[in-house]
Amino acid sequence: MPASPLIYDKLSLGDRGQLMFAGLDTLELAEEFGTPLYLLDEDRVRERCRSYQEALAWHMPEGSRAYYASKALCFKGIYPIIADEGMGADVVSPGEIATALAAGFPASDLCFHGTNKTVADIAYGVGQGVGLFVVDNPSELADLNCMAASVGVVQRVLLRVTVGLDPHTFAAVNTGRVDSQFGVPIETGQAAAFLKDALACEAIEVVGFHSHIGSQIFDASSFCDQVDILLAFALRMRDELGYVAEIFNLGGGFGVPYTQDDPELDIAGNIALIAEHLKAGCAAGDYSVPKVFLEPGRSIVADAGITLYTAGGVKTIEGYRSYVTVDGGMTDNPRYALYKSPYTVVNASNAGDDADFECTIAGRCCESGDRIAEDIRIARPQRGDIIAVLGTGAYNFAMSSNYNRVLRPALVVVSGGKARLAVRRQTIDDLLALEM
Amino acid sequence: MPASPLIYDKLSLGDRGQLMFAGLDTLELAEEFGTPLYLLDEDRVRERCRSYQEALAWHMPEGSRAYYASKALCFKGIYPIIADEGMGADVVSPGEIATALAAGFPASDLCFHGTNKTVADIAYGVGQGVGLFVVDNPSELADLNCMAASVGVVQRVLLRVTVGLDPHTFAAVNTGRVDSQFGVPIETGQAAAFLKDALACEAIEVVGFHSHIGSQIFDASSFCDQVDILLAFALRMRDELGYVAEIFNLGGGFGVPYTQDDPELDIAGNIALIAEHLKAGCAAGDYSVPKVFLEPGRSIVADAGITLYTAGGVKTIEGYRSYVTVDGGMTDNPRYALYKSPYTVVNASNAGDDADFECTIAGRCCESGDRIAEDIRIARPQRGDIIAVLGTGAYNFAMSSNYNRVLRPALVVVSGGKARLAVRRQTIDDLLALEM
Repeated sequence: MPASPLIYDKLSLGDRGQLMFAGLDTLELAEEFGTPLYLLDEDRVRERCRSYQEALAWHMPEGSRAYYASKALCFKGIYPIIADEGMGADVVSPGEIATALAAGFPASDLCFHGTNKTVADIAYGVGQGVGLFVVDNPSELADLNCMAASVGVVQRVLLRVTVGLDPHTFAAVNTGRVDSQFGVPIETGQAAAFLKDALACEAIEVVGFHSHIGSQIFDASSFCDQVDILLAFALRMRDELGYVAEIFNLGGGFGVPYTQDDPELDIAGNIALIAEHLKAGCAAGDYSVPKVFLEPGRSIVADAGITLYTAGGVKTIEGYRSYVTVDGGMTDNPRYALYKSPYTVVNASNAGDDADFECTIAGRCCESGDRIAEDIRIARPQRGDIIAVLGTGAYNFAMSSNYNRVLRPALVVVSGGKARLAVRRQTIDDLLALEM
Repeated sequence: MPASPLIYDKLSLGDRGQLMFAGLDTLELAEEFGTPLYLLDEDRVRERCRSYQEALAWHMPEGSRAYYASKALCFKGIYPIIADEGMGADVVSPGEIATALAAGFPASDLCFHGTNKTVADIAYGVGQGVGLFVVDNPSELADLNCMAASVGVVQRVLLRVTVGLDPHTFAAVNTGRVDSQFGVPIETGQAAAFLKDALACEAIEVVGFHSHIGSQIFDASSFCDQVDILLAFALRMRDELGYVAEIFNLGGGFGVPYTQDDPELDIAGNIALIAEHLKAGCAAGDYSVPKVFLEPGRSIVADAGITLYTAGGVKTIEGYRSYVTVDGGMTDNPRYALYKSPYTVVNASNAGDDADFECTIAGRCCESGDRIAEDIRIARPQRGDIIAVLGTGAYNFAMSSNYNRVLRPALVVVSGGKARLAVRRQTIDDLLALEM
């Protein structure tokens, strides 16, 4: 029986068999900052940013750019990193905009998404000078035009269209089908009417199209299909309306391995294939190759993050199975409860030992569904051992709750062998501060 | 086509066809407090508390009592109501304990649950004088005994045992099976050993047993089966160890109707049936009838709560379906995303109109799974209408998150025709206060 796989290259074994994260001892980090604890490897985040930026610069027209999808992990400390790497940021709410701005991120580099921007949201975005709106629907278009006109600006926008693709991924993260709450479908003719309306808006400048086909996609073929449909639409709009898109925003969706069974993603190779496909299509249609925007979130931060817990009881139900309870769970990582998302779990206290203890990792909530992983194998834990869950950088901190009045963990960023507190642990006083 | 069913008796139609909640105009409440907005009907909560307390007083031995399961809805303002109605409170974390204590709730009336109480949790509970611990497992027992001894107290406890019942409810809320992270199973013999160990602890007084069989149960039969198994165990423990339980805590689990297809729960009738069953069993076994504790949470608050949203776009995907987006969603009510839990939705702006518009209610998050209800019928909405989701008093505020950096709604309590702010709306400054 081998040890648990340390599936990310910034993880290693220390001299006492403990798990090391970006060169630091996880047991010492747990001791210093407490558990549960989110850890994020800044250097890994930067590597991922560069993979996108460099491949886009190499293969796509000048001005192509990656926008970090903030919803994967939004806290002030991420934005200086993103800005430093030359990326824009995709934001989906006034909360995300305000967080980015509080960190000094330029409003002009923000791309504002959302299927239901309220009038207040629109006013806030326009007022703050958000560079680009992704307009989801005709109601938003009308409100945005009205708002922009009232303050005397012309707002640059992308129109969100749905291409009707099913990239064979999980339904809850599949947004490219025609039957979707997001965007306006090409297939039904509604997207053409949407563009026509947008072009008639005096305070709107349509700079291109946005579509997003889903999540956890590991190869370029779905994106090439997406490009085909977008380009066919663009060609038709050129012929019918004389409109030429400057930008194609292909959304996010590149996958991340969560277990050793998942493939590794080749970001540069996939971008190269998409670029080749796009250029061939544009040449065939005599269309000027648009700039390409991508919106990676998960693939920027997921494998840069791990979560540390302290093991509570180890409970063996004779004839059934064993449970290892941890001091967090669905409150800091609801993805197993929501989607049965698989994770790799390691006993950080004995990461080099044989992973021969089959168990289910349960959280501390009074809810049966509070699980992190079921029927996995780790090195046999004792009460007090540090348990690490790998690949938690995306959609963990972002989706965390105070269910059972459990407080949010701290988030510590590690870079160059140094750890710094980026988000402090929540206190009960933080919660009670909102209560009368 | 009839209007949407106002399935709870505190809901009615106003003179302009708008939805009234506990006598107040929901459109005015939305205007005054903003949306999304949680509303809670205090008088309804009190009625439900009395149903339990009166039925327990009538049918069960003196000292029987209901403990409000805080995890369903925990905020300071609930505890004065619970205390006033003579109930105890079941708490599952230091956060819940602290909230109750901050509201002046007596520590002696708290019953402390949890499958993974850390040493710090145990120290906190003992230190605050929590009346009753529900000890989940042998590790906790050892730590609790040690902690109580060290401060010179004898801690009253119930032992959590699993009776191995499947009440045929949804797996994620089914905790009574033998294969569970909660408690210690009777079937395997582990519960008997657990009791023996507990009786040997010098700083522990075992006052009885606790078990919880699941959620959304509408009739007494599962509880009668539970009583049978608990009583058989208790009789055996009397014979083998000379131990007689003073208290049976049967947990929670009484159901609540979420749609008009669900049955109405008869709290008093069910308690009467359980009491009759328990008394007969005790008489047959010559066992002194134990006090019965119940832990209702959902059935105290669920149908006392509604959530108000503002409708954003109404999007019809021709040939497929229509989406109505609201300004909240899985961030304030993750139960559809988690369990596909059904809810009744009403267009509060036109609650008396025919519910003839078939649609899916989508939230504002950039996530396909952000839905509140699918393929339901409401009166046709326009952008700006107030949309009410009924029966959201339990596990909505409690499970809310800041996903997409969406801020938590305010919670307003209504009583005697007056509305008061109980939890203010979260601000971005609240979130940023934790960040470096």
